[in-house]
Amino acid sequence: MAHRPRLHEFRLIEQLRRAFGRTGPAVVRGIGDDAAIITPPKGRQLVLTTDLLVEDVHFDLRTASFEDIGHKAAIANLSDIAAMGARPEYALVSIAAPPSCTAPHILRLYKGIMDACRPYRVALIGGDTSASPRGLFLSLTVTGSIPTGASLRRDGARVGDLLYVTGTLGDALAGLTLLSRRHRRSVGLPLKSSERRFLIDRHRRPIAHVRLGQTLSALRLASAMIDLSDGLSGDLRHLCEHSRVGAEIDATALPLSSALRAYARSSGTDPVALALQGGEDYELLFTVPPAKQRMLQRVARRSGRRVTCIGVIRPKAFGLRVRETTGRVRLLPVTSYVHFHDASPE
Amino acid sequence: MAHRPRLHEFRLIEQLRRAFGRTGPAVVRGIGDDAAIITPPKGRQLVLTTDLLVEDVHFDLRTASFEDIGHKAAIANLSDIAAMGARPEYALVSIAAPPSCTAPHILRLYKGIMDACRPYRVALIGGDTSASPRGLFLSLTVTGSIPTGASLRRDGARVGDLLYVTGTLGDALAGLTLLSRRHRRSVGLPLKSSERRFLIDRHRRPIAHVRLGQTLSALRLASAMIDLSDGLSGDLRHLCEHSRVGAEIDATALPLSSALRAYARSSGTDPVALALQGGEDYELLFTVPPAKQRMLQRVARRSGRRVTCIGVIRPKAFGLRVRETTGRVRLLPVTSYVHFHDASPE
Repeated sequence: MAHRPRLHEFRLIEQLRRAFGRTGPAVVRGIGDDAAIITPPKGRQLVLTTDLLVEDVHFDLRTASFEDIGHKAAIANLSDIAAMGARPEYALVSIAAPPSCTAPHILRLYKGIMDACRPYRVALIGGDTSASPRGLFLSLTVTGSIPTGASLRRDGARVGDLLYVTGTLGDALAGLTLLSRRHRRSVGLPLKSSERRFLIDRHRRPIAHVRLGQTLSALRLASAMIDLSDGLSGDLRHLCEHSRVGAEIDATALPLSSALRAYARSSGTDPVALALQGGEDYELLFTVPPAKQRMLQRVARRSGRRVTCIGVIRPKAFGLRVRETTGRVRLLPVTSYVHFHDASPE
Repeated sequence: MAHRPRLHEFRLIEQLRRAFGRTGPAVVRGIGDDAAIITPPKGRQLVLTTDLLVEDVHFDLRTASFEDIGHKAAIANLSDIAAMGARPEYALVSIAAPPSCTAPHILRLYKGIMDACRPYRVALIGGDTSASPRGLFLSLTVTGSIPTGASLRRDGARVGDLLYVTGTLGDALAGLTLLSRRHRRSVGLPLKSSERRFLIDRHRRPIAHVRLGQTLSALRLASAMIDLSDGLSGDLRHLCEHSRVGAEIDATALPLSSALRAYARSSGTDPVALALQGGEDYELLFTVPPAKQRMLQRVARRSGRRVTCIGVIRPKAFGLRVRETTGRVRLLPVTSYVHFHDASPE
């Protein structure tokens, strides 16, 4: 943790320590020394992940608040921890701030991060701040833990396992499009303001399925798991490549929110395409052996989380295919979620 | 670990995994899943630190190679781990690369990081890459471990303890000035090319005193420790504030390299001021109870590392003072190391 002179860093670090730092039996040394010291929980493995958010690649300061950006960075990491079935515990935050960002902006960024982390009692234990000549950069590392051997990886899917997702798909992409200047006028019925708000909120304030991830690993219900940051099409591909299997998805089964259906009608786009390509939903995609399906349904009901069976794992030679609403089976398109900057005309 | 489409990230991650990844009993899951999984070593606490390097703030692509930048990022983190007396173990690397950076550049950046980490067998376990519209950003998180209770913190210095530093001071600042356009023509004898090379190398390729830090903690020789990233004047202030003490430094005792003395003569600058203000030397500053001084000298001789007693810890009311070569005692100037960008005329 080096010190940079701009941003009145010493005062800022002290403010952050007071607002978000925590010491106790587990955090022996938090913010303020050369490094943080923590006592690892017994009988558990450590889980570590890191995510980077770049201005004009992952967010646009004209449409996202500093809290939104912090929230999104936290969720990207918490969702990675959730996808292992682990418990998030500590965060390290690095920020490079352009001259236009003041200390109150930085505090709002931290507030967004820590508000998203609060339900899981994640403690801020360190970080770094720097001036940036151009553009805001945010790098977040989150660590967690899981009982030894219990983690859910990408490589455990077996032929015959059922493919499940949490929540609904494509909402965040629709929300992003509504926020961006790319959104054209309605071609059909205009979107209700509640639908518009729902979709934009799904983009701005996604949630991470941390508790459900832990339950799936604790009860050993899932054979493989990944979170949907790139979109179903891209992330299913990762899961299948790691597991050396193929998959068949049923387009009619894809869980779509009523707001997404309304958006698709209003904009003349295909809701299935939105569900396959839309990234940053941060839903969990996981595979379940058929014998465990009933138990999964019970657990999901109790947790109040929607889970939907969207297909089945096939042999590798089958490839990745989607059964369309017409009954026709076609290859899953190769797409990777493109952040708004890459998609915008430059 | 999200995926971004630029940089051909999937191929790059696979290359990185093959070149630098490592799995074994400790690394259960490295690069390629949602998060890494490691088994924490028994009876040890975890140490975590993170550092951010920003183009045109911490480095200049006109004078630093990609390997240099990677090296510097690794040393900044390894030195933080060293300053706790801990053993570095794992690294997570996030890079935001501008359009001018290609995959080979990024691999060279990783090579610089991993070459600096290799002596300590630090494994690369994760990271994130992203496009950057403007400027190169590098965020590195390093974790390590230390026997429970053995860490050397900033707050352990006691009145009467002796103040020590490793190596020599001010060299990196002289090297930076020689590299930058701020260097004016010699006023005295010109610098020999070997002296010039030595100083530039100290700026470009600093080392972290990882093994000595571990020895100081294992033998409980130091009461407090910090690494010199901001410069002696700034970092001594941190150590004394955390320990609630004052300090008296002897200017005649400050360890200066012959190259720094030659540089000072040639440029007409005060070598003591360079030693007090120069940042990024990554030497260790630590305090030693008088009873342990002889043992420290023996240990340092055996390790082949130069350690120098430069002063003594005084009560808080004494403040921070430096005894000049003339015998006059003055207040230590309040300075914080300023990176070249901040110091350059804009």
